Amino acid sequence: MRVGTYTLRLKNHPRIVAGGSAVGKKEGEGPLKNYFDHCFTDTTLGEKSWEKAESDLQQEAVKSVLEKSGIKPSEIQYLFAGDLLNQCISSVFGLRSMNIPFLGQYGACSTMAQTLGLAAVFVDSGLAQNALAVTSSHFCSAERQFRLPLEYGGQRTPTAQWTVTGAGALLVGQKGNVSIEEVTFGRMADLGVKDAANMGAAMAPAAAQTIEDYLKDTGKKPEDFDLILTGDLGQVGSVLLREILNQDGIDIERQQNDCGLMVYDRQNQDVHAGGSGCGCSAAVFSSYVLRKISEGDLKHVLFIGTGALMSPTSSQQGETIPGVAHLVHVAWNAQA
Amino acid sequence: MRVGTYTLRLKNHPRIVAGGSAVGKKEGEGPLKNYFDHCFTDTTLGEKSWEKAESDLQQEAVKSVLEKSGIKPSEIQYLFAGDLLNQCISSVFGLRSMNIPFLGQYGACSTMAQTLGLAAVFVDSGLAQNALAVTSSHFCSAERQFRLPLEYGGQRTPTAQWTVTGAGALLVGQKGNVSIEEVTFGRMADLGVKDAANMGAAMAPAAAQTIEDYLKDTGKKPEDFDLILTGDLGQVGSVLLREILNQDGIDIERQQNDCGLMVYDRQNQDVHAGGSGCGCSAAVFSSYVLRKISEGDLKHVLFIGTGALMSPTSSQQGETIPGVAHLVHVAWNAQA
Repeated sequence: MRVGTYTLRLKNHPRIVAGGSAVGKKEGEGPLKNYFDHCFTDTTLGEKSWEKAESDLQQEAVKSVLEKSGIKPSEIQYLFAGDLLNQCISSVFGLRSMNIPFLGQYGACSTMAQTLGLAAVFVDSGLAQNALAVTSSHFCSAERQFRLPLEYGGQRTPTAQWTVTGAGALLVGQKGNVSIEEVTFGRMADLGVKDAANMGAAMAPAAAQTIEDYLKDTGKKPEDFDLILTGDLGQVGSVLLREILNQDGIDIERQQNDCGLMVYDRQNQDVHAGGSGCGCSAAVFSSYVLRKISEGDLKHVLFIGTGALMSPTSSQQGETIPGVAHLVHVAWNAQA
Repeated sequence: MRVGTYTLRLKNHPRIVAGGSAVGKKEGEGPLKNYFDHCFTDTTLGEKSWEKAESDLQQEAVKSVLEKSGIKPSEIQYLFAGDLLNQCISSVFGLRSMNIPFLGQYGACSTMAQTLGLAAVFVDSGLAQNALAVTSSHFCSAERQFRLPLEYGGQRTPTAQWTVTGAGALLVGQKGNVSIEEVTFGRMADLGVKDAANMGAAMAPAAAQTIEDYLKDTGKKPEDFDLILTGDLGQVGSVLLREILNQDGIDIERQQNDCGLMVYDRQNQDVHAGGSGCGCSAAVFSSYVLRKISEGDLKHVLFIGTGALMSPTSSQQGETIPGVAHLVHVAWNAQA
């Protein structure tokens, strides 16, 4: 059911049946290390390339979901997945053997929220009993594709973020005590940021826009939520988001946190402005946050995936970086 | 409503309100030249790069849809779009100013069917009044990204196809006499083809699988359709598709045609095995085929978008090329 202009309210309260996460070494040494299902110390996971390793991370995350839920691939009707690599190859090669109808998604780093939102909408509308949302990123595959060969050892600017090596998978279905209540798919926002080493600034306006759309549509207030969780705005983008919203009379200071700020210990891990990448929000939401909701420690969470829509080619051709943000309202339900 | 294992039957018969198409010079000299809304003779459309030109093609196709339908962007709830360029930049930069919630899609050359299917499902389920499906490809931007610099003048093998310079846009909503009856989203299929110059062979097994799924789910027969239209299997892939289906006792010889075989005059235009690219099925379906359905010349059409899921990186790393195919059953409805 549509609420306001942009928000869908899901009348059947589809459930997140289970979440799975798999991360790399740096993430496995961070503050959330005890919440991830798999922490790999080898960046290649024994594969011959980082790209293949990233596919493996998706497989591991999905494997955890299947184990925890007891649901078989044949009981899952749709697979929504995508990633940052050109032509979404992590998802394709990670998931091709699943034999589930595959709808490839591209939302840059907003992909976890986009795929979760779509899976929720499909289950809520009765189009699927179960639907799977999956995404990933890998520091090494992202660096060489988007920036520089790792061997070059380029200096990073203070606004730069560190691409999370990790994957997350979420199964949406009928069981469990974590429900999806509302979804707001976002519009692109472009305030003219061109600095590909400052993705937080490029994405903050889109996050603000989607949050404002949602609050206006539903009449809710930031105080109605225990956590307003952005995907990977990092330090720079989080400050900007709060500033933009403050100018519009919305204060999310107490509720807001960012997966990019949660995944690493910024004092002791050299990640500059924080974590980023599809795998950032995917791994953090699918592990720690989902656990906290399922245990009732968090009762209402707004999860806002944030994506910077650019490629090296578009930047080289002088283009700005539009942002997009998709919002999912996830809630704890006492009656499991 | 789910029919069988893989097919969705759309109980509200959402309509294709209008279609728009924009193509390049070669396509504008082909057999369908009189059906396209815009034929551009300049490969750059006056832009500084082919990538920007491809974005413009999407804009032109969308502009036609808006003009024909009389529907304003503010009346459209969702935009499903994607393309072949890394990080889907044609869609991002072509459509960022529309201010419509944007769900980026990646289905390689199956994108027109994937986006049309999703738009139809959203409208049928009441999640949107109107939803827009858009995709594109450009010979020059695809060549330099996937293969070789154009200046190199590389030889093409006989199985190679010619990427269509073109875009298509389809508005799904409430009005008109062309309805969407059923959608079958496909599973990936990978029989081990590694030759990136033979995409038809890589995609044919996926097309066969989705067609078989659909016929099994619905109990229908090829004779129930005036046209079984694949996206861009070309000559090689079309023959393979028929062979695979023949082995399973299904004969589509009389009904099957392929957008990649329709868009060029293969006798006089040097395109080898036919056209390909997201823009191939997009431009052909959104122009000629849609017109023929709306005029009642074609009453039941199965439109099967076909995609080869690969990147230059995956091929360089020795990977095979999985295919995927999404099917949409489009019908003429006397009562407009």
